Amino acid sequence: VRVAVLGTGDVGRCLAAELAEVGHEVVVGTREVEVTRARPAGEHASFDDWSDAHPGVGLATYAEAAAGADLVVNAAAGVVSLEVVAAIDPADLDGVVLLDVSNPLDFSAGFPPTLTVANDDSLAEQLQRACPGARVVKSLNTVSHTVMVDPSRLAGPHEVFVAGDDADAKQVVTDVLVGFGWSPDAVVDLGPLRAARGAEMYLPLWLSLMQALGTTEFNLHVVRGES
Amino acid sequence: VRVAVLGTGDVGRCLAAELAEVGHEVVVGTREVEVTRARPAGEHASFDDWSDAHPGVGLATYAEAAAGADLVVNAAAGVVSLEVVAAIDPADLDGVVLLDVSNPLDFSAGFPPTLTVANDDSLAEQLQRACPGARVVKSLNTVSHTVMVDPSRLAGPHEVFVAGDDADAKQVVTDVLVGFGWSPDAVVDLGPLRAARGAEMYLPLWLSLMQALGTTEFNLHVVRGES
Repeated sequence: VRVAVLGTGDVGRCLAAELAEVGHEVVVGTREVEVTRARPAGEHASFDDWSDAHPGVGLATYAEAAAGADLVVNAAAGVVSLEVVAAIDPADLDGVVLLDVSNPLDFSAGFPPTLTVANDDSLAEQLQRACPGARVVKSLNTVSHTVMVDPSRLAGPHEVFVAGDDADAKQVVTDVLVGFGWSPDAVVDLGPLRAARGAEMYLPLWLSLMQALGTTEFNLHVVRGES
Repeated sequence: VRVAVLGTGDVGRCLAAELAEVGHEVVVGTREVEVTRARPAGEHASFDDWSDAHPGVGLATYAEAAAGADLVVNAAAGVVSLEVVAAIDPADLDGVVLLDVSNPLDFSAGFPPTLTVANDDSLAEQLQRACPGARVVKSLNTVSHTVMVDPSRLAGPHEVFVAGDDADAKQVVTDVLVGFGWSPDAVVDLGPLRAARGAEMYLPLWLSLMQALGTTEFNLHVVRGES
């Protein structure tokens, strides 16, 4: 499977590395390749240093990365995600599974952030409207990038959610999740893409929990009654 | 402790019964006592039938119930909660702990509901502004009423959240939760009342989970990493 990962931050790098590790052909998409390559090391390694450690992963513009991809992963920041997918030729997204792992966090007024969209809409639905030919699936946005690709970092059962309007696309994403180490039982289907609202609106609680626990390494286990 | 429980629905009844069971003096508050008493049995028992089974629990208007109460529990529907507390003499709420267990669900456009307030505000904060003398604590809104008062219905650890600006008030609420059977370790302090936003914005995910699991008898366990 050829995969385009949109976004060169921690989330994009982590997903790209793991997708390559499990055997996919992966290209990371960015706005301008030379700008990304020229950016010095800061909160994380320079892209070239990271790239040296992951020689199988390519770097291209958003449009070039998505051309010919079977799966496109939106790992860009929520606030720029619509702009990112707008750079892609709509024909290249026709029928493609678009896995959206982003969160519509607005840090413009500081921490804690608010959401740029909530309640009667979601970023995933905005992306679906912006890319009507794609089959958008929301998943993985409820865990830190380290947990996304290695659920065994947390002991005992815990779950990840999928939401989307296309059952086959949700199965493609579920297979990717299982490839990352998620048990099929740990993948909870929330239903249609509209349910992405709930997955995204969980973020304020996630951020409070992060502060209360002092770590990003946690996740939810849904404990069910006997009935 | 004298407790006023505002609201005569399933949540109010369940909390009132349990609070009386553990030894508190409990009065349920309603808009008009005679209207409540005259309402026939429907989705639940008539109030008089319920009352016969809980002879220690009184019924009074919102204002009468709150007068002299040490703890006021808002178990009214979210959409009417501001109206409900407006019926109470502000002097009767001065210094009182106001435990808000409600959710700002708007079912006017059908199921699933949206929230009447979200993202940059919450119902709990609206209640705090409406009742500046009260010490508002958000809790219990993330579980069904049956789980609120009997966490042992679900096997294994699972958590309940508290959010509020007054540490003593949060301790009062924590004591109530422990009285219901919650382990002190299961009470997660999310921080200031602003964190009620996250607890309330979890509801759309709760509703999707309810549909996916086919039950209201579930809750979250926050699984933490080793670090």
